[in-house]
Amino acid sequence: MSDDSVADLIDGVLAGKPRAIARAMSVAEGRSEKASELMATLHRHAGSAHVIGLTGVPGSGKSTLVAALTRILRTQGKTVGIVAIDPSSPFSGGAILGDRVRMTGFADDDGVFIRSMATRGALGGLARASLDIVDVLDAAGFDVVLIETVGVGQDEVDIVQAAHSVIVVSAPGLGDEIQAIKAGVLEIADIHVVSKCDRVDADKTVNELTAMLGLGRSGKNMGDKGKPKWQIPVISTSAETGEGVEKLVEVIHNHYTHLEQTGEMQHRQRLILEMRIIKTAEDMLREKLLGERDGRLQELLESAFKRDTDIRTAACDLLDAVNGKTES
Amino acid sequence: MSDDSVADLIDGVLAGKPRAIARAMSVAEGRSEKASELMATLHRHAGSAHVIGLTGVPGSGKSTLVAALTRILRTQGKTVGIVAIDPSSPFSGGAILGDRVRMTGFADDDGVFIRSMATRGALGGLARASLDIVDVLDAAGFDVVLIETVGVGQDEVDIVQAAHSVIVVSAPGLGDEIQAIKAGVLEIADIHVVSKCDRVDADKTVNELTAMLGLGRSGKNMGDKGKPKWQIPVISTSAETGEGVEKLVEVIHNHYTHLEQTGEMQHRQRLILEMRIIKTAEDMLREKLLGERDGRLQELLESAFKRDTDIRTAACDLLDAVNGKTES
Repeated sequence: MSDDSVADLIDGVLAGKPRAIARAMSVAEGRSEKASELMATLHRHAGSAHVIGLTGVPGSGKSTLVAALTRILRTQGKTVGIVAIDPSSPFSGGAILGDRVRMTGFADDDGVFIRSMATRGALGGLARASLDIVDVLDAAGFDVVLIETVGVGQDEVDIVQAAHSVIVVSAPGLGDEIQAIKAGVLEIADIHVVSKCDRVDADKTVNELTAMLGLGRSGKNMGDKGKPKWQIPVISTSAETGEGVEKLVEVIHNHYTHLEQTGEMQHRQRLILEMRIIKTAEDMLREKLLGERDGRLQELLESAFKRDTDIRTAACDLLDAVNGKTES
Repeated sequence: MSDDSVADLIDGVLAGKPRAIARAMSVAEGRSEKASELMATLHRHAGSAHVIGLTGVPGSGKSTLVAALTRILRTQGKTVGIVAIDPSSPFSGGAILGDRVRMTGFADDDGVFIRSMATRGALGGLARASLDIVDVLDAAGFDVVLIETVGVGQDEVDIVQAAHSVIVVSAPGLGDEIQAIKAGVLEIADIHVVSKCDRVDADKTVNELTAMLGLGRSGKNMGDKGKPKWQIPVISTSAETGEGVEKLVEVIHNHYTHLEQTGEMQHRQRLILEMRIIKTAEDMLREKLLGERDGRLQELLESAFKRDTDIRTAACDLLDAVNGKTES
């Protein structure tokens, strides 16, 4: 498998073959020449999927919701690719698979493809790699691509914002500290979900969210130039009973239609592309900087360690060194 | 205040004047010429503080522990600077201050300086900015600088790892999903704390951690070359009763002594400097890339939008454009 030519991989991905998709993802995560060649072609074939970002704090029940959404989308005949950004642990030897285990109902279904990604150890570049993997699923023809992240951390927020439709999942009864963290991510929602709506305190959470939404939201969702404004809905769901999940699928569909009809889709696609170009450039630079570990970086480090130079001056020098090499 | 000269700011910081420290931090967060000048000088005066990183998942009680630690360090006559990386919310108009409110016992104490930082909206660069702020506190003469972050997200983990001593806080009784996230951060601990040890299920958490630590740890904490190996302790604390916090302060002190005696301190300082130089270089590049939003980036974006070019090719072109400008 590891010696597949790029042409074979591309053919396999475009034909929707699971092993080719998995292999292409592994190539895409890296920074090889092969990865560049592969992604250049796949990018031209991507752009048809509805990319949905789903985020929420730990304990909000977002993984269970991803599974419930996927089940309904499958009954509607839609194929679903899932990119789950997971913490990893050296103790478990990789990603903690608890969330994925709940998804095994789809193990025999070629219409569902699940990819877990570690959040650590990638020396940055998580956003770049995750969104390249979204491109692989998109090019492979999946109708919907779901990106699931924990709603904490700049990278995780960047990634989920690179979706056409962003769902923020809240759950009733989480602690104060968790609610505070959640607050940082509330403004990126196109759709709010309150999970575990069978709980008695769910109404309180719905009311709080609804009240917040009434408090002068501004920004990307405000109507302007006479365009209809998207009214951010708050949907109650229960993974236990399935309540609200069909409604959520309907609302997601409505959001897609809204994006298409108002021209907002093209606007978002441009924002996403801009972010991806910047993240990819940063990722390329990072590789070059790390390549100086035995060279200029080592010298600058010694100088900074002795406090003969300061960090910003060292960083400037390092950038100059890397740029000089680029042009030689 | 906003027109302070750099020289005045430096004098004020070195004299430990709170208003000068606060102002210098605001300058340091930015990317101005003034910031570079300020940090170049302050960096030369930094390097004496014991920098302690403290992290844990939401609900682990780390903020309460930071307050309890600070109280004891103060009774020992040590001054304490605190950098708290907080989520921000557009709804609250800034940082969610719940955690900070618990710290107000120090409002009248010039021996304690608390700085909260937002985790979002900084267009990246959080690690760079946070660690510059640690330098300000260090140069201002604080004996101990505590960095508190949520233990999720690459940036947050990078930041807390830029400490000499890393404390990971766990709490009994958190949900599975939270435990899974925590797992990703366990390996960076020099010291484990189980908070809320008055809870009946605390022993289970202590036992789980101890068992994990026995399972063939490797890496930075393993002894080599005949150096004594640091035995990662698991300390039980209760913020309610104060139990274990003095013990924790003692262990932190022991860790510092261990770092100094084994030469590990110099090794860590080099790793931290290397990370900071790279993060600062990335931050500088990011600013240049964003400066191309009305220039080359705009052109490349249109080309990528039409799928005439792919993202990696666009990123390469953008880097070339930025580098060309650097040298003009």
